[in-house]
Amino acid sequence: MSESIIDFQRQSRLGVIEAIWGEHKTIEQISKILNKYQLESETALVTRLSKEKAEQLLVEFPSAEFHEISGCLTMGEFKKSSSSKEEVIILTGGTSDLGVASEAEIALNVHGIKTKLLIDVGVAGLHRLLNRLEEIKLAKVVIACAGMEGALPTVLAGLIPQPIIGLPVSVGYGISGGGKTAMEGMLASCAPGLLVVNIDNGYGAGMAAIRILQA
Amino acid sequence: MSESIIDFQRQSRLGVIEAIWGEHKTIEQISKILNKYQLESETALVTRLSKEKAEQLLVEFPSAEFHEISGCLTMGEFKKSSSSKEEVIILTGGTSDLGVASEAEIALNVHGIKTKLLIDVGVAGLHRLLNRLEEIKLAKVVIACAGMEGALPTVLAGLIPQPIIGLPVSVGYGISGGGKTAMEGMLASCAPGLLVVNIDNGYGAGMAAIRILQA
Amino acid sequence: MSESIIDFQRQSRLGVIEAIWGEHKTIEQISKILNKYQLESETALVTRLSKEKAEQLLVEFPSAEFHEISGCLTMGEFKKSSSSKEEVIILTGGTSDLGVASEAEIALNVHGIKTKLLIDVGVAGLHRLLNRLEEIKLAKVVIACAGMEGALPTVLAGLIPQPIIGLPVSVGYGISGGGKTAMEGMLASCAPGLLVVNIDNGYGAGMAAIRILQA
Amino acid sequence: MSESIIDFQRQSRLGVIEAIWGEHKTIEQISKILNKYQLESETALVTRLSKEKAEQLLVEFPSAEFHEISGCLTMGEFKKSSSSKEEVIILTGGTSDLGVASEAEIALNVHGIKTKLLIDVGVAGLHRLLNRLEEIKLAKVVIACAGMEGALPTVLAGLIPQPIIGLPVSVGYGISGGGKTAMEGMLASCAPGLLVVNIDNGYGAGMAAIRILQA
Amino acid sequence: MSESIIDFQRQSRLGVIEAIWGEHKTIEQISKILNKYQLESETALVTRLSKEKAEQLLVEFPSAEFHEISGCLTMGEFKKSSSSKEEVIILTGGTSDLGVASEAEIALNVHGIKTKLLIDVGVAGLHRLLNRLEEIKLAKVVIACAGMEGALPTVLAGLIPQPIIGLPVSVGYGISGGGKTAMEGMLASCAPGLLVVNIDNGYGAGMAAIRILQA
Amino acid sequence: MSESIIDFQRQSRLGVIEAIWGEHKTIEQISKILNKYQLESETALVTRLSKEKAEQLLVEFPSAEFHEISGCLTMGEFKKSSSSKEEVIILTGGTSDLGVASEAEIALNVHGIKTKLLIDVGVAGLHRLLNRLEEIKLAKVVIACAGMEGALPTVLAGLIPQPIIGLPVSVGYGISGGGKTAMEGMLASCAPGLLVVNIDNGYGAGMAAIRILQA
Amino acid sequence: MSESIIDFQRQSRLGVIEAIWGEHKTIEQISKILNKYQLESETALVTRLSKEKAEQLLVEFPSAEFHEISGCLTMGEFKKSSSSKEEVIILTGGTSDLGVASEAEIALNVHGIKTKLLIDVGVAGLHRLLNRLEEIKLAKVVIACAGMEGALPTVLAGLIPQPIIGLPVSVGYGISGGGKTAMEGMLASCAPGLLVVNIDNGYGAGMAAIRILQA
Amino acid sequence: MSESIIDFQRQSRLGVIEAIWGEHKTIEQISKILNKYQLESETALVTRLSKEKAEQLLVEFPSAEFHEISGCLTMGEFKKSSSSKEEVIILTGGTSDLGVASEAEIALNVHGIKTKLLIDVGVAGLHRLLNRLEEIKLAKVVIACAGMEGALPTVLAGLIPQPIIGLPVSVGYGISGGGKTAMEGMLASCAPGLLVVNIDNGYGAGMAAIRILQA
Repeated sequence: MSESIIDFQRQSRLGVIEAIWGEHKTIEQISKILNKYQLESETALVTRLSKEKAEQLLVEFPSAEFHEISGCLTMGEFKKSSSSKEEVIILTGGTSDLGVASEAEIALNVHGIKTKLLIDVGVAGLHRLLNRLEEIKLAKVVIACAGMEGALPTVLAGLIPQPIIGLPVSVGYGISGGGKTAMEGMLASCAPGLLVVNIDNGYGAGMAAIRILQA
Repeated sequence: MSESIIDFQRQSRLGVIEAIWGEHKTIEQISKILNKYQLESETALVTRLSKEKAEQLLVEFPSAEFHEISGCLTMGEFKKSSSSKEEVIILTGGTSDLGVASEAEIALNVHGIKTKLLIDVGVAGLHRLLNRLEEIKLAKVVIACAGMEGALPTVLAGLIPQPIIGLPVSVGYGISGGGKTAMEGMLASCAPGLLVVNIDNGYGAGMAAIRILQA
Repeated sequence: MSESIIDFQRQSRLGVIEAIWGEHKTIEQISKILNKYQLESETALVTRLSKEKAEQLLVEFPSAEFHEISGCLTMGEFKKSSSSKEEVIILTGGTSDLGVASEAEIALNVHGIKTKLLIDVGVAGLHRLLNRLEEIKLAKVVIACAGMEGALPTVLAGLIPQPIIGLPVSVGYGISGGGKTAMEGMLASCAPGLLVVNIDNGYGAGMAAIRILQA
Repeated sequence: MSESIIDFQRQSRLGVIEAIWGEHKTIEQISKILNKYQLESETALVTRLSKEKAEQLLVEFPSAEFHEISGCLTMGEFKKSSSSKEEVIILTGGTSDLGVASEAEIALNVHGIKTKLLIDVGVAGLHRLLNRLEEIKLAKVVIACAGMEGALPTVLAGLIPQPIIGLPVSVGYGISGGGKTAMEGMLASCAPGLLVVNIDNGYGAGMAAIRILQA
Repeated sequence: MSESIIDFQRQSRLGVIEAIWGEHKTIEQISKILNKYQLESETALVTRLSKEKAEQLLVEFPSAEFHEISGCLTMGEFKKSSSSKEEVIILTGGTSDLGVASEAEIALNVHGIKTKLLIDVGVAGLHRLLNRLEEIKLAKVVIACAGMEGALPTVLAGLIPQPIIGLPVSVGYGISGGGKTAMEGMLASCAPGLLVVNIDNGYGAGMAAIRILQA
Repeated sequence: MSESIIDFQRQSRLGVIEAIWGEHKTIEQISKILNKYQLESETALVTRLSKEKAEQLLVEFPSAEFHEISGCLTMGEFKKSSSSKEEVIILTGGTSDLGVASEAEIALNVHGIKTKLLIDVGVAGLHRLLNRLEEIKLAKVVIACAGMEGALPTVLAGLIPQPIIGLPVSVGYGISGGGKTAMEGMLASCAPGLLVVNIDNGYGAGMAAIRILQA
Repeated sequence: MSESIIDFQRQSRLGVIEAIWGEHKTIEQISKILNKYQLESETALVTRLSKEKAEQLLVEFPSAEFHEISGCLTMGEFKKSSSSKEEVIILTGGTSDLGVASEAEIALNVHGIKTKLLIDVGVAGLHRLLNRLEEIKLAKVVIACAGMEGALPTVLAGLIPQPIIGLPVSVGYGISGGGKTAMEGMLASCAPGLLVVNIDNGYGAGMAAIRILQA
Repeated sequence: MSESIIDFQRQSRLGVIEAIWGEHKTIEQISKILNKYQLESETALVTRLSKEKAEQLLVEFPSAEFHEISGCLTMGEFKKSSSSKEEVIILTGGTSDLGVASEAEIALNVHGIKTKLLIDVGVAGLHRLLNRLEEIKLAKVVIACAGMEGALPTVLAGLIPQPIIGLPVSVGYGISGGGKTAMEGMLASCAPGLLVVNIDNGYGAGMAAIRILQA
């Protein structure tokens, strides 16, 4: 079998590092990959990692850090931020969306992007969103997380001119279980110019925000 | 073959008349059924009728009336209204939802329920909805029509305490074509106590409103 | 990260309290939220809570009560009932629907609404339903739970004039597993004016009943 | 290209003739096949045929007969019935199901099976079904057609011990459009021993009834 | 809460007993129901029961018997068979379908119907099926179990004139996981008169066979 | 019925004009709306308009222009471009995607954004894409249209650092018919930071590009 | 707008020519492309072309030929066959699959591959298939077309060792309408090593056969 | 119950052995089948076996070997290879696809086919694939594994003339979870002649490759 080849050129080609997707890999596989990162003195980001796997990896890589809520493990230095203020605001409809929102946050922070996280601004209590509107407008890019019917990014996209990335979250049950209803609702949005990524793809939302900040 | 039997007891049993579903019936079949209604001096409501079929039926039943936008044909007297004000308000996100909204309106009017129709109060221009909120709160029941992502009833259900019937509309394209995304979004709603009927089921939304007014 | 903000205005705005959705929250997150309710002397309702989580929360909040069948935890006083009789009747097709039915019941009881629960009135033994019809008609609102093909609310809606909320239940297997067939069958119902909520959404069915009682 | 080969052994092998599926064939293709039937003096049954195609075929095959409601064309003698009474009863919830019900009826009649058709016995007016129950019980096999939520065969299967073939019909709109909700509802049925065929498959329901009568 | 009511009239009404669906019930709920059966000296059949639940119930009901492969528990005497030979043959494509096939078998045996089970007659090794054809034709009714693409009942329905009940099985992976592909393939069958029940519904297939034998 | 209300504040609120969705509106409805635009001297953009409707509208509004390939009608002056070069590049895999690509282009041009359109750069002939890469990198935002499997935006997102908007197109047949496979493939993309809009939503892709350029 | 670029290198790169997909292109677009082929003296194959479009194109390109059953238009010389016998056998379950089978045949013939077409060998009359088995085994590659449940390629793959390409066909109705059930059944096949292409993709099946013959 | 019958003729009929599908079988069932293989001195291949089951089987069958990554157990001698070089190349987009790729590899090796496995050649880092192209072209058949959007086989099929078997992998989350998006993307591919097997069906891809090598 041929060796696994890391895409270390991704940083120069795309401006972002290649994240290591932890969910379907064994500890041995992740460990091998992290060693290659250490050898190259590259910062590493592992996503979708269980606490059990993370704890075993921390024994071997004591300099790494595990961010439990997001299921992310980082190793190496974060990039320096080039901006003095938060460029990306991440909104969630409720506490249950926190894991996905945090994955986006860490993925951005690793790349030196400052972020602000606002929770509990869901559309069922609209005043909570409207109260924060001026604050939200200060950001260059907005990531709006929502499960269930996923209406938050639609409402927001009717209110502010910023680029808005709808990030569907898999919390829910019955017809909203798994996040597909939220995702399809965002894609079907009547608000002009809403952008969407895959369900629970906090990392992808973050990378998209970086592409926009680079534009 | 046995004869078709009309459910004329429905009025006394359920408080509503049996509508004649025009879509999958031939003109001959509808004509036969309308004759039975005439014989019993019962008010008739035909739904989902094409203009072509309606025009042929009007020749045979000159006292009938065709409501083109809604595709409804009515024959016989409407019930007297027992209320001095509009009891049901019907909201739509845009002009494209008008056919379905009108079906609900006529189904209610036939039963003597006064209605008010507000269009262009969709969530992409939230101020248009918020401006009408006090007016909407005067109704006993609200029917909120929406296609695309279907967020209007969700937003509304977070703002007012009335019973709200989400009526998904099949306008849309791509993932929102056929109205399923709107319907599933309403069912998945994070707002407490939103009720939903089938896509384009204006008649059903009207009958549900009557049940609620009878409660 | 900004603090979680409870929607304590929901009671005055919508007439119902904001339930805490327990399924996707950690014990720590729920505990923090319950503390805010205690501070405000507000009655709290946590839904979709596992026995394990509940038991740990009861240690910290000994005045709370866990309702095991429904997976609900309540803390604080229930509202006084303003009615001398049961206003909402909840029907189930079988013992397997009991959890969802009970969630609806507790959500109503918390708000001071008296309820009656009738089990084993499914359509496979129609006489069991027909025998209870007069009793059912005494209610102002009926919540009809059903899994599998979900025909119970349809049959009922052809028999009585009350508002009927179809509550699909996720019991089933094969094509009926997850409750989608029941839900879609209720939405597709040939009976006039049947209303539907999300699968297993006992809380939502209860809140809809309260909106109707308030109408 | 090799010639088309008719399965004339089907009668002796399975007890039924091979029907010619008219929908996806050109008039030339059907004409060629009918000529082979004439040559073998075999009775032919063409299903799902449009009026336009049928009229052109009748010019060439004047002894054939077109049954417009069902879209069936028959040519040659029907089998003699071996029974003095109706062995199969076909039920429909409404006039809109008539086409599919009639396809089942003709497919049975061609094979010498006597049938009775009862329309308008849908579950929204349950008394209409209950009134006919004793008559229905006289049949050996029952075919129950239903569109929308498809509850009729389920209710029936809880009331009588006969074999019941649920025949889903594609009438409907929104979530019930195309008949899938009816079909899945029948498969998910809580009533014991309900059997199901494909949507609109009147021919198949008839052939299944013949297999049962042959058992 | 009202008491659970067993449908003990089902035997006289439909010719079959009401099975107790074990999957979604607690041991306490099943135990209560079994006690009612004992009190009435009625034979009981519990389906979809885990080994763990079964073992606890056997302690309380030592006269009951657990059939592990099928997940069925029976209590009380089986009906006497009125036939000297196997009336129903149950076919499976492979060992993996055995659980579902056995549920059908036990459900039939409880009602006094003799059965024969043939395994490993799947269509990938067609000679294995063709070799048993004469033996299969001796049955009055055939239940054909299949997972994956579910072609077995289709092939069989082209070869023999008996009533054939297609019983889709949830074994499979990828696109065939959960049994939906097998079920839809059976419904779409080009063979005339194939009948279908829900995925994994061995009990339902058995009850349908009894209805046919009663016809 | 209340009057239709145009959201003329959208320009100042979001930086974009409200497009008129032509597909589900009658000529009369569109005409009424265009008159309001004329009265306000606002530039109007009608999307998804058939040639037949457009020709009738041009009689009434001779200053309007119909763009046949895209199905768009514009009336009034386009905004002045503030940039000297193309800011948005629109890519298509083939001639069949041209309609959707053109809708994006016109929606951008109306707002004063210069665009370049590159066709026939699909992944089946990868050299055609690789040959244009340097040219593509000059844009600030890339809109990549694709039907069928929709791989073009994924491949591109691995090659260049710009924000890329995946625009799924409904050309295709079989499993790719309707564009859902393309859309889901873009959402599932292994490339970091790909953004997606609804199928055929050229207008939405354009509005999203404007939001990004405004960031 | 940039010019459309034909992939004339495809022949040397992949051994096959680029077909022109006629369905979503206007006559003008196809005409432009055919002119480029004429200029390069390249053989052209247009697929999925309606008779109306074809007739107009034949006026401009009199040397082209339209193959009506398959909806294919060819222009220029077919490759010389390098084999003396049929290398690919194409099977269909019935006359209704003929269009798709013919598309595969012409796509192969254009590339100089000899083919044989066998119709009416569907699994409902298994003897018709078994009778032709020795003849089928003479081919190097087999393309098996099937609609409805799509069992033909599965049965065949259990009988012969050749590479078999399952080609699902969109004929059918109800659950088999559109060909998805056939396609999924082929993918789920219990027979070892069955290969599948998109629904109605006769061209793709042909190109796959060429790849195999080149191996 | 009849005995399980192994299809030992499969080798002579199809050129491949019958694999034992381990996932839905008990250890006892697999053990019984392996004993039959030992008795006949036939090589056995068990697929989709958990480590726990494998370890218990190894106690009883010490000559067997368990291949943990692929979940395959083999017993008996592998066929001798008739070729001096790798005939099948298996590609994966990442480490997460390794299990499925390895199942294909072992299934081929058992039949005496030499294989080469290349990992980390996914389309997000296209240079990694392009760098290996000459090496890949040396193979007679290519198996391309991919999860998520599944674009790898499409890109490859535009670059090389070999037969390519797209093997969708169930790694992914959100819309790509379960592998359906990858599978449908491969079927919808714009590249000519791509062939597809079921999700995770490494064994089937291998058997298809053998059929092609035998052609």
